[in-house]
Amino acid sequence: MKKNAQYLAQLRKVMKDKGIDAVIVSGTDPHQSELPPKHWRGREWLTGFESGNGTNGTAVVLADEAYCWTDSRYFIQAEDQLKDTGFKMMKEDGPEATDLIDWVTEHTQEGQTVAIDGMTFSISWAQRLQQQLNDNGVKLDDSFPLFDYIWQERPERPTNKLFIHDETIVGETVDSKISRMLEAVKSEMGNAILLSALDDIAWATNLRTAGDIAFSPIFVAYLYLDSDRRILFIDDKKLTPEVEAHLKKYHFETRPYEAVLEFAETLPKQTRLLLDPGKTSRGLYDHIACTPVFGGDQVAKLKSIKNAIMIDNLKTAMKKDGVALTRFFMMVESEYPKGNLTELELGKALRALRLADPSCVDESFSPILGWNAHGAIVHYEATEESDVPVTGDGLLLVDSGGQYTYGTTDITRTIALGTPTEEQRHDFTLVLKGHIALAKAIFPQGTRGGQLDVLARQFLWKEGKAYYHGTGHGVGFFINCHEGPQSIRLNDVNVPLQPGMITSNEPGIYLEGKYGIRSENLIATELLGTTEFGDFYHFEVLTLFPFDTTLVEKSILTEDETEWLNNYHSKVYNELAPLLQPEEQDWLAKKCKAI
Amino acid sequence: MKKNAQYLAQLRKVMKDKGIDAVIVSGTDPHQSELPPKHWRGREWLTGFESGNGTNGTAVVLADEAYCWTDSRYFIQAEDQLKDTGFKMMKEDGPEATDLIDWVTEHTQEGQTVAIDGMTFSISWAQRLQQQLNDNGVKLDDSFPLFDYIWQERPERPTNKLFIHDETIVGETVDSKISRMLEAVKSEMGNAILLSALDDIAWATNLRTAGDIAFSPIFVAYLYLDSDRRILFIDDKKLTPEVEAHLKKYHFETRPYEAVLEFAETLPKQTRLLLDPGKTSRGLYDHIACTPVFGGDQVAKLKSIKNAIMIDNLKTAMKKDGVALTRFFMMVESEYPKGNLTELELGKALRALRLADPSCVDESFSPILGWNAHGAIVHYEATEESDVPVTGDGLLLVDSGGQYTYGTTDITRTIALGTPTEEQRHDFTLVLKGHIALAKAIFPQGTRGGQLDVLARQFLWKEGKAYYHGTGHGVGFFINCHEGPQSIRLNDVNVPLQPGMITSNEPGIYLEGKYGIRSENLIATELLGTTEFGDFYHFEVLTLFPFDTTLVEKSILTEDETEWLNNYHSKVYNELAPLLQPEEQDWLAKKCKAI
Repeated sequence: MKKNAQYLAQLRKVMKDKGIDAVIVSGTDPHQSELPPKHWRGREWLTGFESGNGTNGTAVVLADEAYCWTDSRYFIQAEDQLKDTGFKMMKEDGPEATDLIDWVTEHTQEGQTVAIDGMTFSISWAQRLQQQLNDNGVKLDDSFPLFDYIWQERPERPTNKLFIHDETIVGETVDSKISRMLEAVKSEMGNAILLSALDDIAWATNLRTAGDIAFSPIFVAYLYLDSDRRILFIDDKKLTPEVEAHLKKYHFETRPYEAVLEFAETLPKQTRLLLDPGKTSRGLYDHIACTPVFGGDQVAKLKSIKNAIMIDNLKTAMKKDGVALTRFFMMVESEYPKGNLTELELGKALRALRLADPSCVDESFSPILGWNAHGAIVHYEATEESDVPVTGDGLLLVDSGGQYTYGTTDITRTIALGTPTEEQRHDFTLVLKGHIALAKAIFPQGTRGGQLDVLARQFLWKEGKAYYHGTGHGVGFFINCHEGPQSIRLNDVNVPLQPGMITSNEPGIYLEGKYGIRSENLIATELLGTTEFGDFYHFEVLTLFPFDTTLVEKSILTEDETEWLNNYHSKVYNELAPLLQPEEQDWLAKKCKAI
Repeated sequence: MKKNAQYLAQLRKVMKDKGIDAVIVSGTDPHQSELPPKHWRGREWLTGFESGNGTNGTAVVLADEAYCWTDSRYFIQAEDQLKDTGFKMMKEDGPEATDLIDWVTEHTQEGQTVAIDGMTFSISWAQRLQQQLNDNGVKLDDSFPLFDYIWQERPERPTNKLFIHDETIVGETVDSKISRMLEAVKSEMGNAILLSALDDIAWATNLRTAGDIAFSPIFVAYLYLDSDRRILFIDDKKLTPEVEAHLKKYHFETRPYEAVLEFAETLPKQTRLLLDPGKTSRGLYDHIACTPVFGGDQVAKLKSIKNAIMIDNLKTAMKKDGVALTRFFMMVESEYPKGNLTELELGKALRALRLADPSCVDESFSPILGWNAHGAIVHYEATEESDVPVTGDGLLLVDSGGQYTYGTTDITRTIALGTPTEEQRHDFTLVLKGHIALAKAIFPQGTRGGQLDVLARQFLWKEGKAYYHGTGHGVGFFINCHEGPQSIRLNDVNVPLQPGMITSNEPGIYLEGKYGIRSENLIATELLGTTEFGDFYHFEVLTLFPFDTTLVEKSILTEDETEWLNNYHSKVYNELAPLLQPEEQDWLAKKCKAI
């Protein structure tokens, strides 16, 4: 038996004392973060199942059963880690999926009580739970802070110091952002807003930190705004004199992090407070005394549009990233024949090369370095157990990115080491054709990413091949690498692509047990021109690094596609060469040679 | 003043007597038909505005104001026809659009009463109206049969005789259809269904008529089904001995049309009655005593999938249609130099040529024959006032179709008469490239039409050109020419394309005041094969008639596109030639010559 079984016993004792029949344990924090800080990783602590970023698991504890839900990426790992903990795994997707709320509803009876820590569940999720339970005569206790009772050595909330994200880099003052936000609040019939999403708060305040959240320079806080008041709820340990001066300059009042609950209780009835029910916690909502106005995430919409200065700075980040990648892939090529590379070693080397630039604060996500069969696992992350040497013939898939103060990068390249097969070259070229078709798209105002998605898939589909992940996600600016609201994917989201939005372009193909291929650049939507039929947009390609032309089967490229590739490579060389050493320039010139 | 002003005065007198402050007058019937029978065209009678099919107008009458809402296709006509009637026009789309329900809500006060004839509004529409009115303290009277009070010479309900749509043509017995329907009802947790949509009823019973509804062989009725009972509510004047025998064979009971209301009141509580809230009237709903279950239109889903026998028969209809079109366009070419053709005359000639085939019961919609600038009006319908002679150089757009007992056709061709301009040839070819790209699409199971739509638009977009109508609509089988649930359009509908669905493929381009181009075929989704990535589908092209190759700019077609066109034309010739006279064969051979 693992120690998790003891934790479970302790929790059951508390449940019994308090008359609680079932507890649901969240995998996230009061801000619905994708990668919550350690302080809120109680579900991991309790169950022993450590999913990559913490959020991909939700536990349910009953008097004599306990379960942990997770998604298909983690089935094998969860099954393994949950052994001897008292928890069994449940599947939240795939053909054997079980809906957690439905399951809890079916496994509780009239008169019983289900408890959650409302601070760690969103309003909308908790609302659905409550509705279903109440329909069955089951009570929901939404303020059960279970970890206060049982988690002895709980890590503190992060206390990392904030720093200012320079206005010359972001191209907009905090005043301007807040005034645009309050306009947006007004358009939703609100007169105040309370932000919980940490990326929204970092964007609004032009502040960042390092270490609160893995791979993203955002920080733990709440932010309240109306036309008179700007209140940042934050641990004062996180403030420096410089940040305090910045906050004062922009008329922010600061209050302790926890004071947000008491503050919410004092809001007068006539405050029409805009809340995003998917991002605001049920626990916070329970304290809100004024009139709530539920709306889409207005700040996410503003945040998704990058101004010209930001895009210009992102181009600087792209150059730095291209330099790091040049050095990395040069090293791979020269070391590979010696036979001493492994996926984990490569990951470390890549990290070091990126962080060598002082403006690179962190990687933008946990990098995916997949050799052959590992490349076919879409969310592969090399571990001590899975690591393999990179030797023999094959394909190496490298999906990685950096958090530069000049912007966030995210790039995937797949290269051949040794001799690629005809099948590999053919598949690589089909993926490339799709990548190019999307990159070259021209489309009228109002077009959504979901409408363009087929452009990237069409050549694979013609041959009965397919990938089932999204083609493109929104990318933040020195903030979360994944952000909304736009996307380019099979499922339509009702958000048009607008000038200034940065999105990834990452078609791929995955042959289980054999290899994976993905080619990813970041692209910015830009106004191309106006005709009698309206405004037309196109994409500017931002990422700067060559595709492996040894994998290109030129005979199946059209002239236009070949021209695009050669022009792109020529641009890559021209932009990166001035920043490289002579031997690096030579290497890059070969990689960028026209085909 | 027109007589409509008197009708309005009579209505206001009734409103005053009954204490009603506002009346909303529907443009449709108790079945939410797109083309209601004369009996229900009271809104037209009242306002004097005769929109093409009757539904495109909704009137609001207040004590001293009266308005009629319509869409942008009818703004000019409505403005004109509403003169001196006491009604003013309101726009329901475009930049100056006013939402009718919002407007009524704003123009009524607490304590007032708004009345509708609930039989002619859907449950969902009336629900939204009631919600908004009640929020403002306004009462909704939903059983105000205004035309019973004021419409003296109201036409009778149609009494056209039904006939049987042969099982050898539809390839499925009524028993089989009903058993599949009841399965679908069960999947939505219902145990009975009450159908109001006339096309659903015609499909379910394998019965048709001619004359109830313009351009569609469907008939006025309601249909109730559960595992024990099949009840058709229909005027008995519509039944023949043959139809009665068919109904008896399939265990239908018939009751008078109006008896549906009384019947609904007698349904026991435990009946979980599936209703489509968009197709069922509020008036009927008010009478339903049992437990309603709201669901999507399950029958529409079943109806959209055509079996192999239907598709085979539709190919027969396509041949007949191709023959009629060959004769029509041959006539156009030979008569055009004489200078005595007009749009209206062409329309009459085309109708006569189609109906010459005994299996063609009607046209499938009011044909669009647009010469030059008229071709740029997407829903143009030639009238005595608008008709122009087809002379000089230009493009003739012909969008038409037939209701054959073997299936419904819908085809658009654009031909050059005289000498086309380079611009016209270029635009025609861009549209054709899009048409071909969609026709050639291959896609995995689960793909929605909205995902493929861009394939048809991409070449226009590349040049800053666009059309804003849908690329494809579902097509019924000897039933409504437009049917759901699938479509291929800018707005996504969450319905995957499935084998057996028939959809149109009709990209176009419209230059106001100059010309319009549209190229339309019907295509059937078909399983192409199965790979390790799943099932893949493609389209089979069903329509048989050549595109005007004098309008094709071959230099901008790819080899694949030229090959597709030549193969298509070769197939058209091979299928149609055996049915044609020698001189017609010669003409067609020229039109189908490889480029």
